[in-house]
Amino acid sequence: MIRIAIDAMGGDFAPKEQVKGTILALNEDKDFIAVLCGDEKTLKAELAAYTYDTSRVEIVHAPEVITNDDIPTKAVRTKKDSSTVATFRLLKEEKADAAVSGGATGAVLTAGVLTLGRIKGVSRPALCPRIPDLSGRGTLLCDCGANLECKSVNLVHFALMASAYAEAVYGWKNPRTGLLNNGTEDHKGDELHRETNEILKTVQGINYVGNVEGRDIMLGDVDVVVSDGYTGNIALKSIEGCGKAVSGILKREFKKNLFCKLRALLVKDVLNKVKKSADYETMGGAVFLGLTKPVVKAHGNSKAYGFSVCIAQAVNAVRGDLAGRIKTLLEKNVEKEGAGEADTEQ
Amino acid sequence: MIRIAIDAMGGDFAPKEQVKGTILALNEDKDFIAVLCGDEKTLKAELAAYTYDTSRVEIVHAPEVITNDDIPTKAVRTKKDSSTVATFRLLKEEKADAAVSGGATGAVLTAGVLTLGRIKGVSRPALCPRIPDLSGRGTLLCDCGANLECKSVNLVHFALMASAYAEAVYGWKNPRTGLLNNGTEDHKGDELHRETNEILKTVQGINYVGNVEGRDIMLGDVDVVVSDGYTGNIALKSIEGCGKAVSGILKREFKKNLFCKLRALLVKDVLNKVKKSADYETMGGAVFLGLTKPVVKAHGNSKAYGFSVCIAQAVNAVRGDLAGRIKTLLEKNVEKEGAGEADTEQ
Repeated sequence: MIRIAIDAMGGDFAPKEQVKGTILALNEDKDFIAVLCGDEKTLKAELAAYTYDTSRVEIVHAPEVITNDDIPTKAVRTKKDSSTVATFRLLKEEKADAAVSGGATGAVLTAGVLTLGRIKGVSRPALCPRIPDLSGRGTLLCDCGANLECKSVNLVHFALMASAYAEAVYGWKNPRTGLLNNGTEDHKGDELHRETNEILKTVQGINYVGNVEGRDIMLGDVDVVVSDGYTGNIALKSIEGCGKAVSGILKREFKKNLFCKLRALLVKDVLNKVKKSADYETMGGAVFLGLTKPVVKAHGNSKAYGFSVCIAQAVNAVRGDLAGRIKTLLEKNVEKEGAGEADTEQ
Repeated sequence: MIRIAIDAMGGDFAPKEQVKGTILALNEDKDFIAVLCGDEKTLKAELAAYTYDTSRVEIVHAPEVITNDDIPTKAVRTKKDSSTVATFRLLKEEKADAAVSGGATGAVLTAGVLTLGRIKGVSRPALCPRIPDLSGRGTLLCDCGANLECKSVNLVHFALMASAYAEAVYGWKNPRTGLLNNGTEDHKGDELHRETNEILKTVQGINYVGNVEGRDIMLGDVDVVVSDGYTGNIALKSIEGCGKAVSGILKREFKKNLFCKLRALLVKDVLNKVKKSADYETMGGAVFLGLTKPVVKAHGNSKAYGFSVCIAQAVNAVRGDLAGRIKTLLEKNVEKEGAGEADTEQ
């Protein structure tokens, strides 16, 4: 059976929401085992609140916690008994098939790279969230923060990895893949983007649709958007801020006076549906693509439902053989100039 | 009296909405003269639909139009009789104090730089729109597309120019100015951003608050966000796409069935207020900062109201002595290393 290693102590509401999310996921999908990493006593106390198939839950005692204040590389090397390091150790020792963590991003990325290592041929692993869009299906944005400065070979690998992910986990056939740029025409962007755009046109096994703009991320006409981590991070957070601002404005106007408040009650179900359509929690976590086993980075402030979606994502990544598909897609292009070149700058 | 040169033929709905917008602006503010550039016969026919103070409207015959298909540098040099080139010629010949155009962005930027030239000390002019935010006041984002690749001296000038603009046109005292980055901590970003962050801390005459993230653009806690043009463009368009997607989802849910449609009517006034709060048309155009006279670039698809806001913006830029303030602020820093250095790469 598929075994998912879960960092039960990483996250703003851990371990409470992590444990609750695990129970939700176990009830949704009968075909995996959850291995919770964290303080054994605390986790047992949390688990006691639920009825569940005890044969499908294991605990690995790891009482330490890595916080956002820790320096990632140092913390991963010194806090060997932390829930995050323990989670990745399970993968390395072949005791689990995929990992889920809502812990400090830097620590998760560092532990992933140091403990698991990269799939052969991958120049740089990348963080790939699924952003809610108008179509309801979502758009994958890769990279959104793991690699600030990129070369064209890195961007090409992001395109290959995210395309493989779209097919493996979501079953999207020939996902439409675009390069984030400041305009759609071929002459747009700096030298790196013009060069990458030309290389992507020749890459085997992906459905490259050309340059796309920031507005395309949420309009549903593209499935995968490729970017360097700096720009992807800015796009992701700009969208997050816009969503929060619009939601804040809606709340303010509907609470302006008693008449508005009463009418808000009348349309509550509609507004809730809108909120759900634009809610990133329904979209799961960001997958750290390019490692030898699937790693899902849950949002630090995930609640139980959001965390359960991340666990389901990890299970599906194992079922869809995410790592195998990335390897195959990379090998298809390994002979091609610029697409398979190794990059040791990680 | 203040004289505003108006490109009456540039824009998706020109000259109809341009003329209507001009009339709106003339009625709102009795203290400026509008000089419309475009085909005289067409403009006279459009104007005939309105009653207005004829002593405050002049026409400069310029029948040609520069389109998005034209190559900007070539079009500006060869289409001398175009409404866009005629608009900027008026500024150069001291026959107008500021310009407003909804024409092709490339042509407006090129005509601005070639015809008007830069304020002494400005390394690169930059495009600065005002983005709607939760506070209702808006946030200035500079640059959002005029300069794809930047050095720290350019980013420092963007901070100075946008701060001067915030004070000159909107009267914001000590506008809170941040550097767009992938995190707020000082160690975030690549070398350029780390260096720029340190320089900005030492710049005189601006209220620098440190690094800001994409989400801060719309949350109302900062007034000016400084960015290179590539990233600024991605942020701007990501926000635009998010707004469109949320608006699309709202429409879809409120039109789902008859019951939803009926309830939509009941809350129509509230939804309209939300729409207006998030509408960029109320925020005016992007100002092309750093030229010797104020230039407002209206959105290509501006309707009359949006265009009238752009005209008011141009009038206020003249009244607030935008160019003079930028010059003064730059001079304050001209002795400082890295902030006043000339850059001839434009």
